[in-house]
Amino acid sequence: MSLLVLGTVAFDTIETPFGKADRIIGGAGTYVAWASSHFYNDIKLVSVIGGDFPQEELDALSARGVSMEGLEVRKDEKSFFWAGRYHNNMNSRDTLATELNVLEQYTPVLPDNIKEVDYLMLGNFAPGVQKSVLDQLTKRPKLVAMDTMNFWMDIAMDDLKAVIKDVDVLTINDEEARQLSGEYSLVKAAEVILEMGPTHLIIKKGEHGALLFHKEGMFYVPALPLEQVYDPTGAGDSFAGGFMGYLAQTDDFSFENMKRALVYGSVVASYCVQEFGPNKLKAIDEEAIKARTNEFLKLMDISMSVLA
Amino acid sequence: MSLLVLGTVAFDTIETPFGKADRIIGGAGTYVAWASSHFYNDIKLVSVIGGDFPQEELDALSARGVSMEGLEVRKDEKSFFWAGRYHNNMNSRDTLATELNVLEQYTPVLPDNIKEVDYLMLGNFAPGVQKSVLDQLTKRPKLVAMDTMNFWMDIAMDDLKAVIKDVDVLTINDEEARQLSGEYSLVKAAEVILEMGPTHLIIKKGEHGALLFHKEGMFYVPALPLEQVYDPTGAGDSFAGGFMGYLAQTDDFSFENMKRALVYGSVVASYCVQEFGPNKLKAIDEEAIKARTNEFLKLMDISMSVLA
Repeated sequence: MSLLVLGTVAFDTIETPFGKADRIIGGAGTYVAWASSHFYNDIKLVSVIGGDFPQEELDALSARGVSMEGLEVRKDEKSFFWAGRYHNNMNSRDTLATELNVLEQYTPVLPDNIKEVDYLMLGNFAPGVQKSVLDQLTKRPKLVAMDTMNFWMDIAMDDLKAVIKDVDVLTINDEEARQLSGEYSLVKAAEVILEMGPTHLIIKKGEHGALLFHKEGMFYVPALPLEQVYDPTGAGDSFAGGFMGYLAQTDDFSFENMKRALVYGSVVASYCVQEFGPNKLKAIDEEAIKARTNEFLKLMDISMSVLA
Repeated sequence: MSLLVLGTVAFDTIETPFGKADRIIGGAGTYVAWASSHFYNDIKLVSVIGGDFPQEELDALSARGVSMEGLEVRKDEKSFFWAGRYHNNMNSRDTLATELNVLEQYTPVLPDNIKEVDYLMLGNFAPGVQKSVLDQLTKRPKLVAMDTMNFWMDIAMDDLKAVIKDVDVLTINDEEARQLSGEYSLVKAAEVILEMGPTHLIIKKGEHGALLFHKEGMFYVPALPLEQVYDPTGAGDSFAGGFMGYLAQTDDFSFENMKRALVYGSVVASYCVQEFGPNKLKAIDEEAIKARTNEFLKLMDISMSVLA
């Protein structure tokens, strides 16, 4: 019944208007794994790191039910490194440095015991790497979700579309939905993208929430307005992790349950941005998730019948 | 039990990526009156027009329950005129022309029979004009709402704050909330603004929906994702009109009912943007409002209890 998570495990240097964090733990795989571990504890992480990555970080994840058979460690190489600076509005950022290091020559090789899983989260990675994981599975998972970003649309659109064709759920942001579809209206963009393969499209709008598109309808989950956002890094990955962790826990892919998963993804993402790196994600517990879920439900709560 | 509506009645020339509309009917008062007339039919419009304004437009409003005792007509002058061009994303616009005309020397003089009303909507206008209407009322209305814009914050912040102090509901957009409060976080901005006088703050976020802040809590209503937005002009005024029209109809200012009013405001605004000017607002009927309200409720519908 495992949840396989593909995603980078890396170091990040992050500058925001509220401070700077130097070479902290980051990467889509890290955020997805931490976020999903709050809902599910049979997670297999697929990624690659160098000899410089701290063992205690891996141990902390293992203690949460994240197994490392699929994690390749290259002792003599360095882990992926990204540095970025957020603008004042936190909605946009500049990349200051990207050192691929171990990612330069990475093709995942899945050990036999993780080739059959029920849930697969293809975190943001080169489309070729995402495809390679899909291709090595000996059984089609019950649910396959993928995240990606505009970078891959710019340089590898055909490869990307080949992966999108094979997934059930695609999560991208609003600008990426426009780029991928060539449509400005998100309704039209969703129509085009749902023709490309996925049965579900989630459009992430950052501080403006997220939209789920499916043939049964649309659903909107707001972002919780917060007193302070310290660091948006990993918010989308945390969202995907909470979403998939909840779906793996409940094993229910009805539209109604997908909507609940969208709320839990938003809950986890709302915590993620409140500290630098994945620190807050590590610190929260079941009580914290319950409390914030109630805040979301209150924010969305409406009791009305249509005018007679 | 009347609803008094202050707002400009004007001509607009509008360019959007989808076309151009030359000297069509516009103005905050026009949009508010049309929008609220779908919910309530004892509306008093307070404004000023020139001799160039078409009588049939006034007749159409009168037929919807909007009375014109408070409308000053200056036969020898020209109505207010605004021209603007929207950018591709429809979220920002350039003003191409502003001809104040009749507005240059306007101080409303309320006839005696409209000095006692139950509901007051101070649409976007110079703060001094808004204040003058408030001051002429012989009885405090049950509910006073006001709209304003960054223009008045730039040139008349003190006057503006003097009006804000006296209203129950303030509707502004997210950038204006930041400017007015000096806080970037909308949560902090709302705290500051609710200290200025209003008991309710509505932050309008255009295509991203709207937030209601009150001491009892926060509520979020999404905007309905649309296939096509032709012209955002008047969306905020339509929102305010639907909001106040529904509150006047129900005469219930509980937080629960304010939330419903927020949904109806959004319903009307979602129609407004689908055609140039107030055309769509004029064309819709009760059936259309019911149908779209159901679309909103579906978009927001979630059934979940928090994880035990």
